[in-house]
Amino acid sequence: MINVAIFGFGVVGSGTAEVLTQNAKLISERVGEEINIKYILDLRDFPDSPFADKIVHDVNVIINDPEVKICAELMGGSHPAFEFSSAALKAGKSVVTSNKEVVATFGPELLKIAAENNVRYLFEASVGGGIPVIHPIGNCLTANDITEVNGILNGTTNYILTQMINEHKDFDTALAEAQEKGYAERDPSADVDGIDTCRKIAILSAIAFGKLVPPDKVKTEGIRGVTLRDVANAEKFGASIKLIGKAVRVDGKVSACVCPTLVRHSNPLSSISDVYNGVLVNGNAIGDVMFYGRGAGKLPTASAVVSDIIEIATYLSHPVHTTQVWERLTDDEILPADRLKSRWYLRFDKKPSHCLASLGAEVIEDAPDSYAVVTDEVTLLDVGITVSEKFVAMRVL
Amino acid sequence: MINVAIFGFGVVGSGTAEVLTQNAKLISERVGEEINIKYILDLRDFPDSPFADKIVHDVNVIINDPEVKICAELMGGSHPAFEFSSAALKAGKSVVTSNKEVVATFGPELLKIAAENNVRYLFEASVGGGIPVIHPIGNCLTANDITEVNGILNGTTNYILTQMINEHKDFDTALAEAQEKGYAERDPSADVDGIDTCRKIAILSAIAFGKLVPPDKVKTEGIRGVTLRDVANAEKFGASIKLIGKAVRVDGKVSACVCPTLVRHSNPLSSISDVYNGVLVNGNAIGDVMFYGRGAGKLPTASAVVSDIIEIATYLSHPVHTTQVWERLTDDEILPADRLKSRWYLRFDKKPSHCLASLGAEVIEDAPDSYAVVTDEVTLLDVGITVSEKFVAMRVL
Repeated sequence: MINVAIFGFGVVGSGTAEVLTQNAKLISERVGEEINIKYILDLRDFPDSPFADKIVHDVNVIINDPEVKICAELMGGSHPAFEFSSAALKAGKSVVTSNKEVVATFGPELLKIAAENNVRYLFEASVGGGIPVIHPIGNCLTANDITEVNGILNGTTNYILTQMINEHKDFDTALAEAQEKGYAERDPSADVDGIDTCRKIAILSAIAFGKLVPPDKVKTEGIRGVTLRDVANAEKFGASIKLIGKAVRVDGKVSACVCPTLVRHSNPLSSISDVYNGVLVNGNAIGDVMFYGRGAGKLPTASAVVSDIIEIATYLSHPVHTTQVWERLTDDEILPADRLKSRWYLRFDKKPSHCLASLGAEVIEDAPDSYAVVTDEVTLLDVGITVSEKFVAMRVL
Repeated sequence: MINVAIFGFGVVGSGTAEVLTQNAKLISERVGEEINIKYILDLRDFPDSPFADKIVHDVNVIINDPEVKICAELMGGSHPAFEFSSAALKAGKSVVTSNKEVVATFGPELLKIAAENNVRYLFEASVGGGIPVIHPIGNCLTANDITEVNGILNGTTNYILTQMINEHKDFDTALAEAQEKGYAERDPSADVDGIDTCRKIAILSAIAFGKLVPPDKVKTEGIRGVTLRDVANAEKFGASIKLIGKAVRVDGKVSACVCPTLVRHSNPLSSISDVYNGVLVNGNAIGDVMFYGRGAGKLPTASAVVSDIIEIATYLSHPVHTTQVWERLTDDEILPADRLKSRWYLRFDKKPSHCLASLGAEVIEDAPDSYAVVTDEVTLLDVGITVSEKFVAMRVL
């Protein structure tokens, strides 16, 4: 019997307890031993839960119990998740997490502590919910020099954009409905301002390129500025607007950004709708490969958490071979997003006074109150030099 | 330095040598040691190849060289691939392969020999070319009770069907063009008659359900019978015709089949075009998850072969923990495909004499020379009992 502890009995924590219980038979067949939930750490009590007797309020009960071999940190937020995770790792327990904030912020420290203590720190659930992304990129595409990762990494924004595209609802209406359906929080900022996507693309940059782009170096723009006019212009151009997290290696530097993007219909990301997520990876041998599924939700996220627990439990008696320790990219190793070339969609309130021919601009819309073009491959710096008017800019993929 | 040998210097063999050479620096960083191609086994000589000096014609040179730790069997066909692989495993060498025929036919024996000799037998490249499929399903969805796998597993047939759907070319024209472009063999039977897909879904059944459906128990139908009329009817119904390999568990039994299928546009497999492959997996926690990419080709397939080599090389000094040994499903454990319920597309040369109301049939086409319906969820046995006329049948997904 292998004892585990769950930190945080919220949506993902209760889903994890549910999957461990519901699929207990097949899990113990796969591991070769039973997995037992010994403790659940939460500030609250849950007297009506079947797991009521597992609840503890003091993390030290878990840290000091040598029988606990694996902790699942499912609390969210940086603190005390970081402190609890590092204490568990230092006590010789492996840790799995769904917490993208803590992985994107403290991943380098936590992986180092895990390596020093011969235990493992796994976080498949931190990106793409239940979709296997981190493990396949880190372990199954290892033959490749990975050049680029683009992902739809946030289900809430993708749901809102899908409503704007298919039902022609404006942003505010679509957001309000997403809130009603429980897809968006009352304070939707982490989703709609791109903060959640920013953390996830930072993590993917580390998996793909071996070093973490610190989240505060990821130029991040959300979807509040996307209008139905942009949606219609994108359609005219043969594209759908998606919030894309992008990490790319150019001339030995890494550039990462989050922004609304015109994804052409030839790109498989363009057909990913509603709350689904997709991660498109390009490697020099494989070409394009995409991972698709539900990027959030109680049971999908628990699927990844529990699969990580199974991975650790299966190899618990083996020596840990930790190849993965992340450094952070320094400023010298990062290419600022405004110097990363791409085609750009630019929309102006009216036709700009300067000629845009130097940008290779193709006119998409020419109305008295709205003028939109798509440029050749240029940087946003180039655009800023050419254009003096205010404009909305979105990348084209 | 870790020495490897390549069996077979055809398309995948030369691609594997190319990827190992081109990405040598990053591969040795990932493994912690250099990977060296010591031998390439082929009947032919390749005097103009940069690998000319590695070529040997006698497999025993490799088998008897204790320095060789990993063999990549990339020969294709059952024999002598099976004999060479088992000899290598018995000599204490791990084996990786792209050979779906040998894995689908002799997987149970080869995995057993590997386990007995404390070495590994990996075959990520045997399904989906370079797309990580086998490893993610087998290792990243382990929290799930997997209920169903549906896949577009053959790029040639998907290319032909895409030409029929998008360009309205008939089967013979589309096949001839695929042959011209090198996507189809001169003898296209393994592709268009579904044999390749049959082997791949047999392998996926073993990964998903722990036991192999023997390929000769997979009811297999290719795409030769698909007409432009069917393509148009499918479109009317909101679906695209795809050659689908399907493995599903129902009431404790497994059913596997390969047949042309009307894939509704709401299913993410329906938008997979040209030579691309996709594998859609359903698990009880994750819901639907899909893996997408190039299912064949020199470098994509080599990507999977080399990633398997890297996986073995990285953990070469570790004890092998082999959880995976396959048994074959017995006839009692297999549900024949004609008893597996689904909605069916049925096309007749003319309106049948019997009423189809008992099948819940929805009429899709009612022309003097062609009559097509889509039924409710029924078995093909049910259809056969109700209908006396000759008909074409395709599942609906």
